[in-house]
Amino acid sequence: MEYILGVDGGGTKTLAAAADMDGRIVAETEFGSSNFKSSGFEKARENYTAGILKLAAKLRKSFKDKTPFFKSACIGLAGLNTAYDRKMFNELVLNDDLKLILDIENTILVNDTVIGLAAGSMKKNRVIIIAGTGSNCYGINAEGGQAKANGWDHILGDEGSGFSMGIHTLRAIMRAYDGRGPETLLMENVFEYLKIKDIDELNMWTYDTEFSKDRFASLSLVLCNTAEMGDKVAIKILKKEAHEAILNVKTVVSKLKLENKDFDLVFVGKNFRCKKYFTDIILKKLKKDFPLINFLPLINRPVEGAVRLAAEI
Amino acid sequence: MEYILGVDGGGTKTLAAAADMDGRIVAETEFGSSNFKSSGFEKARENYTAGILKLAAKLRKSFKDKTPFFKSACIGLAGLNTAYDRKMFNELVLNDDLKLILDIENTILVNDTVIGLAAGSMKKNRVIIIAGTGSNCYGINAEGGQAKANGWDHILGDEGSGFSMGIHTLRAIMRAYDGRGPETLLMENVFEYLKIKDIDELNMWTYDTEFSKDRFASLSLVLCNTAEMGDKVAIKILKKEAHEAILNVKTVVSKLKLENKDFDLVFVGKNFRCKKYFTDIILKKLKKDFPLINFLPLINRPVEGAVRLAAEI
Repeated sequence: MEYILGVDGGGTKTLAAAADMDGRIVAETEFGSSNFKSSGFEKARENYTAGILKLAAKLRKSFKDKTPFFKSACIGLAGLNTAYDRKMFNELVLNDDLKLILDIENTILVNDTVIGLAAGSMKKNRVIIIAGTGSNCYGINAEGGQAKANGWDHILGDEGSGFSMGIHTLRAIMRAYDGRGPETLLMENVFEYLKIKDIDELNMWTYDTEFSKDRFASLSLVLCNTAEMGDKVAIKILKKEAHEAILNVKTVVSKLKLENKDFDLVFVGKNFRCKKYFTDIILKKLKKDFPLINFLPLINRPVEGAVRLAAEI
Repeated sequence: MEYILGVDGGGTKTLAAAADMDGRIVAETEFGSSNFKSSGFEKARENYTAGILKLAAKLRKSFKDKTPFFKSACIGLAGLNTAYDRKMFNELVLNDDLKLILDIENTILVNDTVIGLAAGSMKKNRVIIIAGTGSNCYGINAEGGQAKANGWDHILGDEGSGFSMGIHTLRAIMRAYDGRGPETLLMENVFEYLKIKDIDELNMWTYDTEFSKDRFASLSLVLCNTAEMGDKVAIKILKKEAHEAILNVKTVVSKLKLENKDFDLVFVGKNFRCKKYFTDIILKKLKKDFPLINFLPLINRPVEGAVRLAAEI
């Protein structure tokens, strides 16, 4: 029997869904990283191959189907940014072990923003802004144009992300400690959150463990709570990150010439839970600049967007 | 015979100098990293022990001295910031293999800013500002007070450093590329410097090699050259970093209550080679705020400061 395949491949976990030819999801599987940047090429390839084969095995079992075949597929991949990334992901995803169950000619690899946007909006003019651990923005317009801004990861970019919030939280604490910056409740709130007691331990927490963006991004919750306590330093950091997110959207909107058009803005990522000093600031400013904008939190899962795009191939 | 020992221990190389009891350097040796943070504890301990034993061997040979003994020692260490660092460095430096040639009771471990300051100024009120790969500021006053600001390394601090300049250079390029920020000559100048041809290769240069602060800090030279070509984006980055350096100094000066006193400011680090948009801005502003300040570039080597401090023990 023939199916379509949608994949949401992340640095920590990957979701794969098989749908029937009408686009209804009939089987799913979840497995580890399919990103060579976070887990190394061999491990990512191994995870990915085993995961897709497992999905095929489920189809065999559920539908007594001896030869399930994915007639088309859309693979959304976090970290697919450059030509080099594409070359690596092509090798990883379109590998010989999967050739028997997959029509490689009808398989597309896209950045995970693309499947997120497909999951979040059906409108012809649409943009997605992500503010999770990382930051990304992508959109398409009725003329088929595409545009992106940011999504360059933590050294080259990620302004407006949870990682950026976390780093600026830590730096504000050190500035206060040194006397280079104003006092802030961030110090005691972060100490409490991390269950540490002093700057020495903050140094150890920062440097004496393997570098992880997630660990720093987790501090964005403390930052948000501290801002809501009225702390000026925390509020200032959040407002700055909110303006970076606004800049991401404005850049994409401008490239797509959507300024005066009716378009959806899908927003997703844990930082949008921070209402007063992040989400509200962003939505208010964008509404002012783009009167015909419609805001939509992403409710569907990105893997559903991948299935939708695979169905259109 | 008895000697005094001075050490300048860095993350890449370590210099050790033996001086006679009048403080005249009579033998030197250079060896690898003595910093457990950059080379691991065992390797750093091994380097350090072998290096000091080699210095003792030189004394034996030069002075036909069978039992050279370091009566006092001052060990300057990059990365000695916290109580945890001190515990680790104590184990590393005051180890059993060296006990026979060293008076551990008369050995002091200090941050490398302390030996830099001792090398750079004899004045009672004195401050040192470092803007190399990292950023640091430290001072002492006539009353014996000490103060520092920054020096928290690349995640928690390093504002005003070459590393910070490098990162902001890269981010400005990505902003221009995205359309999030103004166009800048930094893009073509960095491409030329790195011998790369596009953003894909910049991504690879950034992420596909082991993380190294030095690599990013090396871009500060391109930043300086680009600013001197009149590029507004480059000038803005440099001015911001200069103001961070100024803030470091002002914080230390304020803690030491040197505002209206005659004091030396020793400056060191490759970024001070960037005159027009870094050094000149810093010196002009500080001269205005602190009329009795004296500027001194660091000419002596920090290891000479270590010897001087060891002689005072």
